[in-house]
Amino acid sequence: MESIHTRRTIRQYCGRNIEPDMLEKLLSEAARTQTMGNLQLYSVVVTRSEEGKAALAPAHFNQPMVKSAPVVLTICADFRRTSTWATCRQAMPGYDNVLSFMNAATDALLYTQTFCNLAEEAGLGICFLGTTIYQPLAIIEALQLPQLVFPVATLTVGWPAEEPPLSDRLPLASFVHDETYHDPTPEDIDLYYKEKESLEVNREFVRINGKETLAQIFTDIRYTKSDNEALSLTFMEALKKQGFIH
Amino acid sequence: MESIHTRRTIRQYCGRNIEPDMLEKLLSEAARTQTMGNLQLYSVVVTRSEEGKAALAPAHFNQPMVKSAPVVLTICADFRRTSTWATCRQAMPGYDNVLSFMNAATDALLYTQTFCNLAEEAGLGICFLGTTIYQPLAIIEALQLPQLVFPVATLTVGWPAEEPPLSDRLPLASFVHDETYHDPTPEDIDLYYKEKESLEVNREFVRINGKETLAQIFTDIRYTKSDNEALSLTFMEALKKQGFIH
Repeated sequence: MESIHTRRTIRQYCGRNIEPDMLEKLLSEAARTQTMGNLQLYSVVVTRSEEGKAALAPAHFNQPMVKSAPVVLTICADFRRTSTWATCRQAMPGYDNVLSFMNAATDALLYTQTFCNLAEEAGLGICFLGTTIYQPLAIIEALQLPQLVFPVATLTVGWPAEEPPLSDRLPLASFVHDETYHDPTPEDIDLYYKEKESLEVNREFVRINGKETLAQIFTDIRYTKSDNEALSLTFMEALKKQGFIH
Repeated sequence: MESIHTRRTIRQYCGRNIEPDMLEKLLSEAARTQTMGNLQLYSVVVTRSEEGKAALAPAHFNQPMVKSAPVVLTICADFRRTSTWATCRQAMPGYDNVLSFMNAATDALLYTQTFCNLAEEAGLGICFLGTTIYQPLAIIEALQLPQLVFPVATLTVGWPAEEPPLSDRLPLASFVHDETYHDPTPEDIDLYYKEKESLEVNREFVRINGKETLAQIFTDIRYTKSDNEALSLTFMEALKKQGFIH
């Protein structure tokens, strides 16, 4: 899996299509990923049509990749198929609860990442859209997701038409803990974030946004408390609509 | 990533240790996985000590792999390091909410799966413990996880001492949907689950448990409604304790 060293998020795709056989092979191989009780608590909605992409785009704040990628995949936590199976087999399903949502979301996200690793190894470029859980209700409507199905990840997939620089990562010591959690001290924080904060691209970002620190870009602009709190409410509302909370 | 074709969950490990360099390399490479805003909203607690494993074992219903594996990894959704960074940099973090938990859990699970793909390719065997979110409070205590850190996945890792048969998977049509979600009919269910239900190992499982159908094994024994509802409550309690809900 040499591709892990050089992977980057790809937002620009060339015109070349993804052959249906290739996509099916990747979707199928990714299903070798471990899954709870071997139940495969996920489903994937494949969007190739212009109308389908146009319907999804607003849910992703009209990020251009949704319309420009040849394929958009919406991966869903899915306890519906399993529950329907149970109902068809004289069994009483009990998966309309938060734990079951988390079980299915876990299955779906593990599947998603194996797909990403396989697809990138095959030369495809991917952008993971974190917006999926920001406006789940819009996606639920666009894809006609029934109860006990909930979108947790969206991938735009295509052949890369760009090669952006590799993004930086924090040092291992910042996220790996030996035996018990080591709560970072201010000195640890200085050490962990020094490189990230000193990158010219990040310093420029702070300047043009009129901020004092890089952290303020995240707290004041990209992921604000008020946005997070509002989106938490819509997220819970969507969980309720899909039958995972009552 | 040829290993995806032959991977299976490994629960028995031979005595050979995992070299610290090898583990660090895998933990480091996995961090190339995409992450929200490049914030790396996860942390990994590495348990190698006998005492550490003994402290974790009850949280995983004393499944023997926890004590017999040379390494146990607990991967956590972590908004604490990022929040501490913000506080140290005159920025006001706003990540004590459900959306932020989901963002961090997503980052953590994607990271987890790349680690699994890489480790399996390197010849290691892994068991993913779904029990992590069943008794999060016990894990939080054992690993001394502070607020805004929440365990979402546990991997027992070692060199394989068994080669169990490959497990079955549902046909692609059961989990891939074209453009919109296709709600499975009883006929679809028959088609999707025919192979799984006809496997001798599953038929035997139904017989020895005195059940009528395979689905009943899941609904009546493995993942019951009453367990799921009770565990949903402790899960929400743990989210509250860790500061993600109020």
